[in-house]
Amino acid sequence: MEYTIGRYLIDRLAELGIRHIFGVPGDYNLSFLDDIVDHPALEWVGNCNELNASYAADGYARIHGISALVTTFGVGELSAINGIAGSYAEEVPVVKITGAPSTVVSNAGKLVHHTLGDGDFHHFSRMFSEVSVAQTTLNEQNATDEIDRVLRLCVLKKKPVHITLPVDIHSKPATMPKTALLENLPQTDTNTLNKLIRHLLPVIEKATSPVILADYQVYRYDAYSTLKTFAEKTGFPVATLSMGKGVFDEDHPQHIGVYSGKTSTPYLRKRIDSSDCIICIGVRLTDSITSGFSQGFSEQQVIHIMPHGIRYQDDTWENIEMVDALTALSTRITKRGPETLDIKPILSQDEYKHLSSFYAKPEQPILQERFWELMHQFIQKDDVLIADQGTAYFGLSTIPLKEHVTFIGQPLWGSIGYTLPALLGTQLADPTRRNILFIGDGAFQLTFQEISTMARQQIKPIIFVFNNDGYTVERAIHGEKQVYNDIQMWNYAEIPSVLGAKSNQVKVSTEGELIDALKNTIANTDTLHFIEVVMDRMDMPELLNKVGKALAAQNN
Amino acid sequence: MEYTIGRYLIDRLAELGIRHIFGVPGDYNLSFLDDIVDHPALEWVGNCNELNASYAADGYARIHGISALVTTFGVGELSAINGIAGSYAEEVPVVKITGAPSTVVSNAGKLVHHTLGDGDFHHFSRMFSEVSVAQTTLNEQNATDEIDRVLRLCVLKKKPVHITLPVDIHSKPATMPKTALLENLPQTDTNTLNKLIRHLLPVIEKATSPVILADYQVYRYDAYSTLKTFAEKTGFPVATLSMGKGVFDEDHPQHIGVYSGKTSTPYLRKRIDSSDCIICIGVRLTDSITSGFSQGFSEQQVIHIMPHGIRYQDDTWENIEMVDALTALSTRITKRGPETLDIKPILSQDEYKHLSSFYAKPEQPILQERFWELMHQFIQKDDVLIADQGTAYFGLSTIPLKEHVTFIGQPLWGSIGYTLPALLGTQLADPTRRNILFIGDGAFQLTFQEISTMARQQIKPIIFVFNNDGYTVERAIHGEKQVYNDIQMWNYAEIPSVLGAKSNQVKVSTEGELIDALKNTIANTDTLHFIEVVMDRMDMPELLNKVGKALAAQNN
Repeated sequence: MEYTIGRYLIDRLAELGIRHIFGVPGDYNLSFLDDIVDHPALEWVGNCNELNASYAADGYARIHGISALVTTFGVGELSAINGIAGSYAEEVPVVKITGAPSTVVSNAGKLVHHTLGDGDFHHFSRMFSEVSVAQTTLNEQNATDEIDRVLRLCVLKKKPVHITLPVDIHSKPATMPKTALLENLPQTDTNTLNKLIRHLLPVIEKATSPVILADYQVYRYDAYSTLKTFAEKTGFPVATLSMGKGVFDEDHPQHIGVYSGKTSTPYLRKRIDSSDCIICIGVRLTDSITSGFSQGFSEQQVIHIMPHGIRYQDDTWENIEMVDALTALSTRITKRGPETLDIKPILSQDEYKHLSSFYAKPEQPILQERFWELMHQFIQKDDVLIADQGTAYFGLSTIPLKEHVTFIGQPLWGSIGYTLPALLGTQLADPTRRNILFIGDGAFQLTFQEISTMARQQIKPIIFVFNNDGYTVERAIHGEKQVYNDIQMWNYAEIPSVLGAKSNQVKVSTEGELIDALKNTIANTDTLHFIEVVMDRMDMPELLNKVGKALAAQNN
Repeated sequence: MEYTIGRYLIDRLAELGIRHIFGVPGDYNLSFLDDIVDHPALEWVGNCNELNASYAADGYARIHGISALVTTFGVGELSAINGIAGSYAEEVPVVKITGAPSTVVSNAGKLVHHTLGDGDFHHFSRMFSEVSVAQTTLNEQNATDEIDRVLRLCVLKKKPVHITLPVDIHSKPATMPKTALLENLPQTDTNTLNKLIRHLLPVIEKATSPVILADYQVYRYDAYSTLKTFAEKTGFPVATLSMGKGVFDEDHPQHIGVYSGKTSTPYLRKRIDSSDCIICIGVRLTDSITSGFSQGFSEQQVIHIMPHGIRYQDDTWENIEMVDALTALSTRITKRGPETLDIKPILSQDEYKHLSSFYAKPEQPILQERFWELMHQFIQKDDVLIADQGTAYFGLSTIPLKEHVTFIGQPLWGSIGYTLPALLGTQLADPTRRNILFIGDGAFQLTFQEISTMARQQIKPIIFVFNNDGYTVERAIHGEKQVYNDIQMWNYAEIPSVLGAKSNQVKVSTEGELIDALKNTIANTDTLHFIEVVMDRMDMPELLNKVGKALAAQNN
């Protein structure tokens, strides 16, 4: 069989380790989907709709490192564009492939379906140029070069790329790849790195209260282990922002908590804000994770170790990869003992002293505070946690996690409903880890049909849906009792079976029922668990209450 | 209380007759939603997600003439952009309002949530510029002028407009409107109209086989009655395209069918293709409605009466409104008798002779062909029919309808799943008409949660869901047995109650069961009816079979 452009594209995706491609069929992509179905290394995962497909791809990439989704032209790709924009904002590399009308049809400007009817076939790639780092329309001549160009940019920049594949092009002949896709990627400039170290080492060594503040880019640039080594070789305490929660093990003796500006614990706030050397690793200070930009330090105190460069005060060094900078500094910084650094590991704090067991008040309604205390016990080493941007995110971000727990939220883009389809992606990306989703009812209603695809794929995550009768996260900001924050009451616990999912589905209203449900998930790991948790509509994590007020003030 | 910009905007929407505003709350629109909730003439309709809100708004505008929806910035508006693009493609006027970060925040380029994190707050309005006819960002100085400018363009061009409303602006003071919004809209130029008539009248009078071919723009430009008068005063036979099905009463003695190029009935194909004067009224010939551009006539045969102008061969006359042209021509064209015009009313044709009753073969599985025959009986005068772009559209478009039945489909944009939320809009726009939705299971899975909002709004449409185990419309084009055209099997008939809807929900597999369900809808009009209709996965209307082949050929 002749080697084709479609096969080339899919081989390159497989080369990046992609094993699942998400999307929805449409008449301009069907024959390309044949190529995917036929490929030995790849599986097609058909989603219920394109927005959900884009969220699933985002989740897959956060665990696996990169992902791909295929939709049809116009209708399909525009339904996915919010998800792609989220991937762009939060630096998640997703390859968006659009099956498009044939070259003949578009060159003639025909009035075909899935177009705006004006003969212009470039509207949608222009729209995607706002939310992707590279775009291309493949043709018979440029295809293999262009595929390589945009895929390399996707990997390098950790942002989405957009490929338009006309329906007549995928079957055209191509030459098999001769070199590895990621050969000769830009590398750290050793000279610059050495100069940098000569410049920064004295700054760090003479600091009296150095501290590490790490964020989500450590996840994206695969620097989890490097950060751990860096922390242990220097002895410096480590805080993270909530967006990067889990990039450093929270049961590590050097972990001092999740920093969130003025809503941090008094110790943590003082420890960070008054440090004379804050080593920020992959940090971006956005409003939701700093309680409205309430951080109490200035740029003068910070050394920024960024994905591809370093910034300190007025100086910037480029062409230095994050992991190389951390590795080089690890070997040169003098290690200090904990007694010199004011380290209060989070787990030793008084407020977690009472977290000693599941045994609770069986008849008591479930309060947010108690729920998260129980979760602190329930969450285990290696879990993947996904929290929607409501009470779930703000509740989960305040409890300490065990070793190698991955925390996934979307606090910058903040698209409610994102997490449920994202769970499909995270769980498929690594079926060996226990995945746990926390989502509110309002968010759930946007995208919940993807439980259907979880059933088709036979994955077995644990899903907690908070039934608190509306958009509590909005009530925290404005309109506590306004009708627009109300939603229709659903019979949540019945949903999986209606969508054809075999699951253990249960509705819990008391601590006793919740604890029984938790025990059941441990006893029965071979099924999807769906747990509807009834909570009061204005019960919210204290952090959300404070952040809500800060965001409301920002709107005036 | 001081008069504000927010109030001005809402007053203008109310002046356009809008009574419901669709959308989803988000922190940058909450306080503006207070203004909506407080307004005496308007009701807030909170949707399950923003795509559904945009579809509902589209449906509302197709019945009411114009509509509005409100979302938050970034996440919300991008989820709605596919729906807005559909409104743009199919010329539906929708006012899209986005609640945005405050002017202070955007001027400072802050790294706030719902942005791409790059300090650029204009990405999304640029994206909307591809799919809307006007865009504006309101500020304290420009607001009232800009609101009037874009709303007038929305009405004039019958296309969406995009308004960015920063969260700090709606509460700023404004002056109440002093003049009517639609005062001094551009009007027909009488001189041009008279010249045109002198030019065209001889062409029409000397034609031996004149015929009228009408399409969806007759709906958009509110020319239903004018077209009827025009037809009756001239005596000319009328065909429509399927996109405009219902713009001329199909039980009218001058109605000769739905033209679809080579898949039309032999009589209709010949009658149109060989006419020496085809008066096209609001027609755009797209692939899906012409079986892949298979129309058998040329531009030389056509007089195009367009929304704002007339085109005949190489001449174009502008600044003539469609209704004015039709009215003027009505009074001048000599009326001809039916005996001179080869008119075969569709209802007299043999193929519909057997459509005489509901009484059928009770045990027989439900076939597409029989289903549509039964629908021909079931559909009554004044019904509003909404058909999703699959077997539903191609089945419904071939059966004749009674007087003043409105047919809604989306054959140009063709976004599957559009119709279910659109039904929410069409039914709210006119609760006195019976609304009936026809949708396949694949399409249903994209957007079905909007049944929940129907329940909240207590509307009572009839919903048919075809359970035929996958994307039959795609199977018709390519990949009949491919896994990507399969979907998860759901318990469809249980869905309304799970979503909190009180409805008559039933699953039917035989003609007898279907007929019982139909009778039940007639006996019980005070409830939502949800009817799951089991059909074979490859049973499809003959028209879809043919169109599918034509579209597949177009992809080579």
